[in-house]
Amino acid sequence: MIYADYNGSAPLSPPVKEYLLKRLEKGPFANPNAIHHLGAKTLMGMENARAVCAKVLGADYDQVIFNSGATEGISTVFHSVLGCDKNTKKTIIISGIEHSAIINTANYYASEKGYNVKVLPVTKDGVVELETLKKWIAEEKSNIAMVSIMAANNETGVIQPYKEINDLCKSNNIPFLCDTTQFIGKTRFNFKESNFDYAVCSGHKLGAMTGTGILLVKDATTLKPLIIGGGQEKGHRGGTQNYLGNETLAVALTAIDSVLNNLNALAEKRLEFEAKMKKAFPNVVIIGEKAPRLASTTYISYPGIHGQAVQIELESQDIFVTTSSACSDNMPVTSKVLRAMGVEDDVGRGVVRISLCLNSPLEYYDQLADALTKAYTKLTKVKSF
Amino acid sequence: MIYADYNGSAPLSPPVKEYLLKRLEKGPFANPNAIHHLGAKTLMGMENARAVCAKVLGADYDQVIFNSGATEGISTVFHSVLGCDKNTKKTIIISGIEHSAIINTANYYASEKGYNVKVLPVTKDGVVELETLKKWIAEEKSNIAMVSIMAANNETGVIQPYKEINDLCKSNNIPFLCDTTQFIGKTRFNFKESNFDYAVCSGHKLGAMTGTGILLVKDATTLKPLIIGGGQEKGHRGGTQNYLGNETLAVALTAIDSVLNNLNALAEKRLEFEAKMKKAFPNVVIIGEKAPRLASTTYISYPGIHGQAVQIELESQDIFVTTSSACSDNMPVTSKVLRAMGVEDDVGRGVVRISLCLNSPLEYYDQLADALTKAYTKLTKVKSF
Repeated sequence: MIYADYNGSAPLSPPVKEYLLKRLEKGPFANPNAIHHLGAKTLMGMENARAVCAKVLGADYDQVIFNSGATEGISTVFHSVLGCDKNTKKTIIISGIEHSAIINTANYYASEKGYNVKVLPVTKDGVVELETLKKWIAEEKSNIAMVSIMAANNETGVIQPYKEINDLCKSNNIPFLCDTTQFIGKTRFNFKESNFDYAVCSGHKLGAMTGTGILLVKDATTLKPLIIGGGQEKGHRGGTQNYLGNETLAVALTAIDSVLNNLNALAEKRLEFEAKMKKAFPNVVIIGEKAPRLASTTYISYPGIHGQAVQIELESQDIFVTTSSACSDNMPVTSKVLRAMGVEDDVGRGVVRISLCLNSPLEYYDQLADALTKAYTKLTKVKSF
Repeated sequence: MIYADYNGSAPLSPPVKEYLLKRLEKGPFANPNAIHHLGAKTLMGMENARAVCAKVLGADYDQVIFNSGATEGISTVFHSVLGCDKNTKKTIIISGIEHSAIINTANYYASEKGYNVKVLPVTKDGVVELETLKKWIAEEKSNIAMVSIMAANNETGVIQPYKEINDLCKSNNIPFLCDTTQFIGKTRFNFKESNFDYAVCSGHKLGAMTGTGILLVKDATTLKPLIIGGGQEKGHRGGTQNYLGNETLAVALTAIDSVLNNLNALAEKRLEFEAKMKKAFPNVVIIGEKAPRLASTTYISYPGIHGQAVQIELESQDIFVTTSSACSDNMPVTSKVLRAMGVEDDVGRGVVRISLCLNSPLEYYDQLADALTKAYTKLTKVKSF
């Protein structure tokens, strides 16, 4: 089996499984806020996990807020930045390729709180248009409440000019949320070097327990808790902490940190795979090919062959890919990310997303090439549309 | 070891551990929203878990919203009921013995959204004053936005007149959130029979994975998502679902359901234990003694002996109890629950909370009696205050 849907969700990573097997056996299990020894030990384990996460992510210890995942992180940041009724700045800037968690949250603040959402266009390679952002900020910087743009796109793997965006925001005093859900764990990341105000990640994308996550925040005093509760996470996120899950975040992030050196080899092999496919099938399109991309993602289309047909063919060969993001791939249409990039329907309906992880064996790309060749050969005989 | 802090947090229950050990080995791990077979299988497992939770909790399948715990459930309900800026009803009624998750959330809506919080007094036995609630509702029912009162108190275990409160709310069209965090899993509960609008629970109180929970809602169309995201949980709660955690909720609830018959024996043994302690130490006070209480909770005080000293003595005998709730027990003062009950400081500072689970061996109470006898005997020689 080749699981090639890491951008959708990662299986528990082997070190996390191993950790959990021991952890389940030996404990401790207790409320980390309890006064007894078991509580103190639980708390210590969790705070040690926080320190490990902080170190791997290049953040200070108190910049790491544990939560249930990136979506909660996003809702918390919007609530913190925009939730004050006295906010006089009324424009939110996002891009046309954001994850629906960002788009839906921005739209909520538009419809419920009177904000105006401006959607930054992207180039045909899937990169947000920096010049337009510059223009918009120059035009109405005193009215921009926040900017929220992702670091890497979940479908295409295209890396965005987050540094330039952050600099622009910083020099104009605009809070910047960088959606790093597909970036953290897939390439090098250092929160303090990034100088972002807010960044988010989800444990299930990293091989940690499902339902875990981290909100990274430059200055935690800017946070308003979304989940209020009894003062946990220094008042930033209520609810008895998910100590078991949080511990797995430390294990998963440490495991990822140890294989970052695989990045170049993976990227090269990925390019070799893509070149092979394009040579064998000259019609084939690699989405975002000319842009900088994550080493582990290929978004590939054979125009005229339906992506879902390709996905099913690959599945029959025990290879698991998707057509777009998990949130939208039940719709057999061109995804909104591809529409924002101006991709035509015959290409857009033909895509499959192949996403591996940093320590996927490089041979997977050979096997993927063989399997995809078989699938395209078969399906070109019965063109879908 | 006797772990007697189940009201604080339950260890993973043995069936949950067993389930996880198998589950980690065999998978599947995938985004439950992915189109491939692994995604579909993951989704099916999770939705099967929802059906099991619904059955055990006496709810309809679509009344079960998975989330990260009771605190998130509480924040979601307040947001749903009060989050609309056009709300003209401005009074929230809670009680003086609510968990800080309720109190802090109500206070947030008071300070940020102009609501008025009325705090219902309780009797000296720790039961909310129903007559006062009736009076308040009669006086200003058209102005009451919601009522939030717990089913059983986390410190005392005292069961509240939730049926009467619910009836009062229903006949006056007032939304009622019943904080069932300490009730579900500790006694019989049926959501539909309760007729509550909203009820909450936390997996970590039930022996399920930490960071899991369920919001029970009579009519899910009344919900406004707090965590917005990509439309998961039918749009009621965004974020890739914590499928592993949600599965453990089904396992833990099923395990609890199978031992509900232990309730009477446990309650009897608990009374025997309390009688034994009172006979041996006539000064001893059982908090809420005359009120209906959960079968598994004893809140016991030896006036003049500091609870924390008792807790440490018990811990030296490998017995883990707390002095009050995990959220407040780091403060060596009379808890706010006890203050609301009008408990004097010499009693309030002397309490320890002993909380077991439905299938704790009955012999634990004999061991607890012996250990507590030793502790009191030793500590009465060096009175704390």
